Amino acid sequence: MTDHRTSNLQTIGALVRAGSVSSRELVEESLRKIKQLDGRLNAFITLDADGALAAADERDAEIARGAYRGLLHGIPIAHKDLMRTKGIRTTAGAKIFANYTPKTDAEVVTLLYLAGSVMIGKTGLHEFAYGVTSNNPHFGAIRNPWDLTRSPGGSSGGSAAAVAAGIVPMSTGTDTGGSIRVPASFCGIVGLKPTFGRVSTRGVLPLGATQDHVGPLTRTVRDAAIAFNALMGGNTSYIPKPYVDLKNIRIGWPQNFFFDAVQEDVRTAIYVALKTAADREGRIVEVQMPDMQAVRWAAFTTLLSEAAHVLKPYLSRREDFGEDVRKMVDEGLAIPAVEYLEAQNTRRKLRRQFAKLFDDVDCIFTPTTPITAPLIGQKDVTINGVEEEVRAAATRFTRGMNALGFPAMSIPCGFSAEGLPIGLQLIGNAGREDVVLH
Amino acid sequence: MTDHRTSNLQTIGALVRAGSVSSRELVEESLRKIKQLDGRLNAFITLDADGALAAADERDAEIARGAYRGLLHGIPIAHKDLMRTKGIRTTAGAKIFANYTPKTDAEVVTLLYLAGSVMIGKTGLHEFAYGVTSNNPHFGAIRNPWDLTRSPGGSSGGSAAAVAAGIVPMSTGTDTGGSIRVPASFCGIVGLKPTFGRVSTRGVLPLGATQDHVGPLTRTVRDAAIAFNALMGGNTSYIPKPYVDLKNIRIGWPQNFFFDAVQEDVRTAIYVALKTAADREGRIVEVQMPDMQAVRWAAFTTLLSEAAHVLKPYLSRREDFGEDVRKMVDEGLAIPAVEYLEAQNTRRKLRRQFAKLFDDVDCIFTPTTPITAPLIGQKDVTINGVEEEVRAAATRFTRGMNALGFPAMSIPCGFSAEGLPIGLQLIGNAGREDVVLH
Repeated sequence: MTDHRTSNLQTIGALVRAGSVSSRELVEESLRKIKQLDGRLNAFITLDADGALAAADERDAEIARGAYRGLLHGIPIAHKDLMRTKGIRTTAGAKIFANYTPKTDAEVVTLLYLAGSVMIGKTGLHEFAYGVTSNNPHFGAIRNPWDLTRSPGGSSGGSAAAVAAGIVPMSTGTDTGGSIRVPASFCGIVGLKPTFGRVSTRGVLPLGATQDHVGPLTRTVRDAAIAFNALMGGNTSYIPKPYVDLKNIRIGWPQNFFFDAVQEDVRTAIYVALKTAADREGRIVEVQMPDMQAVRWAAFTTLLSEAAHVLKPYLSRREDFGEDVRKMVDEGLAIPAVEYLEAQNTRRKLRRQFAKLFDDVDCIFTPTTPITAPLIGQKDVTINGVEEEVRAAATRFTRGMNALGFPAMSIPCGFSAEGLPIGLQLIGNAGREDVVLH
Repeated sequence: MTDHRTSNLQTIGALVRAGSVSSRELVEESLRKIKQLDGRLNAFITLDADGALAAADERDAEIARGAYRGLLHGIPIAHKDLMRTKGIRTTAGAKIFANYTPKTDAEVVTLLYLAGSVMIGKTGLHEFAYGVTSNNPHFGAIRNPWDLTRSPGGSSGGSAAAVAAGIVPMSTGTDTGGSIRVPASFCGIVGLKPTFGRVSTRGVLPLGATQDHVGPLTRTVRDAAIAFNALMGGNTSYIPKPYVDLKNIRIGWPQNFFFDAVQEDVRTAIYVALKTAADREGRIVEVQMPDMQAVRWAAFTTLLSEAAHVLKPYLSRREDFGEDVRKMVDEGLAIPAVEYLEAQNTRRKLRRQFAKLFDDVDCIFTPTTPITAPLIGQKDVTINGVEEEVRAAATRFTRGMNALGFPAMSIPCGFSAEGLPIGLQLIGNAGREDVVLH
C-alpha cells in the first residue's frame, strides 16, 4: 500500500503504470484519509466517492488492457468548487450557489479527466473565491494542516489543505489576486499561476474575467509541470523539460518591491533561498521593479469592478452574502468607469515595462507572502510594527502578476520560528512557465 | 483645367498619370476654391498652402521621371483635424488643443502621403469629435454646402463639407458613433466606416478607443474603395474588385430597426433604393435585427465612459470646453464601472447575434440618418410627431455599428422635399468592405 502523503504524482504515476498499485487502492486511500482528517480540516465541500470508485475501476481496466493515459492515470485529484462539474453541485463556496448543479464540465475538468485522473470531490474555498482566508461563513472555516488554529490561505484553501495533508497529490485552484499562490505559501506546497490565457477558464465560475487564472497545486515542482501540461491538454506521459539553459540562469532580485514590509523570518528564508540558488547554478541580477504600487492599485481596482459586475445580479439576496464579500461588492459598485479604464491603461503600460526586465533576467525571486499563515479569524497583522489587513499583506507580492499576466509560482522554502511554512515566489516572462518550473 | 467639383479620384488620378493635369494645378485649384468658398463654409481650421504646393511639385517631378504611386498621386486631400500631423497644429476642434503641434504624423497620414496624395489642410470638426453638428464654439459653426443655414453633420463636418463643395475629392474622417456616416449623409457624399481595427488609429487623437474608426469621405463609391485601400497601406494603382458574386447578392431588409422614427421622405427614398437595387441585381431578404436598442445603449455607455476617461485630465480647464461636450464628460464621469462592463458584455453577445444575420444576407440596408441636415443651432427634431434630440436621432442607425465593429457605409440616395441629401447605410459582415463597396 502506497502512502501518498509522502509520494507524488511522478512516483505514484509510475507505480500505477507498473501495476504495483491500482487506481482503486489510491482512491480508497484518499477517501480513508478524508474520513480520518477532514472532520478537522474541512477541506472538502462535496465528495463523489461512488463516482470516483467507478472511475478508478475503469482506469484500472484500461491499465489491464494496456491503455495508459500518462502520469495522471488513475490518480485521485480534487477540484476547487469553482470548476463546473456535470451533475455534481458547484457552490463557489457561496450560499447563493449551494444548490447549483451544472449540466457541463469546465474545460479543465474535462482535460484532467482525459489525462486519466480521478476526481474524488470538490474542495472548499473563500466565498466566491473572493478573499484570502477561506474562513467561509456558509461551509465553515478551512484549517491549515500545519496548525489547525490557522488559515490555509485562500481562496483555494481547501485545494491546498487537501494536498498538504496528503489526501491527494494534486488539486486545481484559481488565482485572481493570489488565490493559488497564497494558500500554497501558507500550506508549504507548490502552486502555479500560469501566464494569463494559457489555461482555459471556460466553465469556471468567474470572479474577474481579465485576471482569472486556473492552475495546479501539488507537492513538488515536477508534479506542477505534469499537471500544468495536463491543464493545457498536453502530453502527460513524461515530465516536460524546460527550454532554457539552466546553467547560467539569471535570477532577478528586486531592490524596491516593498521589501521592508516582510516578516523577519520570511525575509531570512528568502535570502537563504536566493543565495543557495545562486551558488548552485546561475547568478543574481539586481533589478529595479516598475511601480508595483500602481500595478497593485490597478489589479485591485480591476478586481473590485469586475467582481461587482459578476456578483451584482445576486444582490437581491444581500443577506446570503458573507459580510466581507458583500462589503467588497458594495465597494466595487461605487467605482467609476473612468477609474476602471485608468486601471486598464496602467496595466498595459506597466506590462510593457515589466516585460523589459526579462531582457536582463530569466526569473525574479520575491516572497510569495510577507507573512506566514494567520490565525483563523485574524483580520489584521503587524509587520515590523506596522498594522495592516491580512488581505492586503497576503496579496502584496501576488496581486501584481494577476494584473500583468506573467506566470508565477510559489514553492516552499523553509519554516518560520513557529514552524509554519514559508513560500518563495518565482516570476517568469510571459509564456515561460518552463523557466519558472525549473 | 479640370474642375474637380464634378470629378473624382478615379478620373483625376488618370489625368495626373497621363500628364494632362499637374498636381500643382490641382492643388492651386483647391486653394482657389477654399478662398472662394471657405469664408462661408468654414470647413478648414488650418491650411498648409506652401507645404502642399511644395509637395505637389515633388509629385509632379516624380511623374515626370515615371515614378507613379497610384490613383492618389498628386491629388489634393484634407485631413480631419484629429489626425496628428507633424509640424502642423492639430486642434481636435478644441480650445484646449488650439496650440498643439505634434512631432509625428498619424499612421494614416503617413500612408496617404506614401500613396502620393497632397494634404492641403486640416478640416474642422465637432469639438473633440464628440458630437454630430460640427457647431464648434471655438472655431465657429461649419456649414452645409447644400444649404448654408444647415449643419453638415459631424463630427467630421469639415471633411464632408470640403468634399461636397468640390474643394478636394477625398478627405479623412473618424467615426466613433457615426462621425463619418452622419456628415456623409447630410452632405450627399460617400462615407465609409471600415471594420473595427482594420484601419490604424495610431496617432489619431482618441475619443473612445474601443469604438474609434478611421475612414474616407469621397464623392463616389469607387473613390471610397481606392481611399480605403490606401488607408490600409494597400495598392492604389487600381480599383479593387469585390470578392463576391454580385449577381445574386442578398440584401437584408430589417423588419424591426426603429423604422417608424424616420422622416417620411427619407423612408420613401430608402424604399426606392432598396427596390432599385433588388430589381437590378440581387434579392431582398427580410431580417429580424437583434436588440438594437441594447446595442445603442451599450455603444453610448461605452462612449460616455471612454471619452470621459480621455478628457478627464483637461477638466482643470473646465471653462475651455464647449457646453455640450462638458456636459457629456460630466455624464461619463458618473457611469459606474459595472455598467461599463455590462455594456462590454452586451457588445460581445450582440456581436455574435448580429454576425449570424450574415448567414442569410450579404449586406443590410438602413437609412444612415432618419433625418436630413438640421439647421445650425437646432437642438431638437420632431419625427412623426415625436420630439427628440438631434444627436439621438442622427446617430440612431449608425451608433450600433461602432459598438459591434461591422463595416458600414453611407451613400447618397436622393433628396428630400427641401432639396437636402438623403443617405442610405449599407452594413456588411466583418472584414467584408468589398461587399459594402459594391
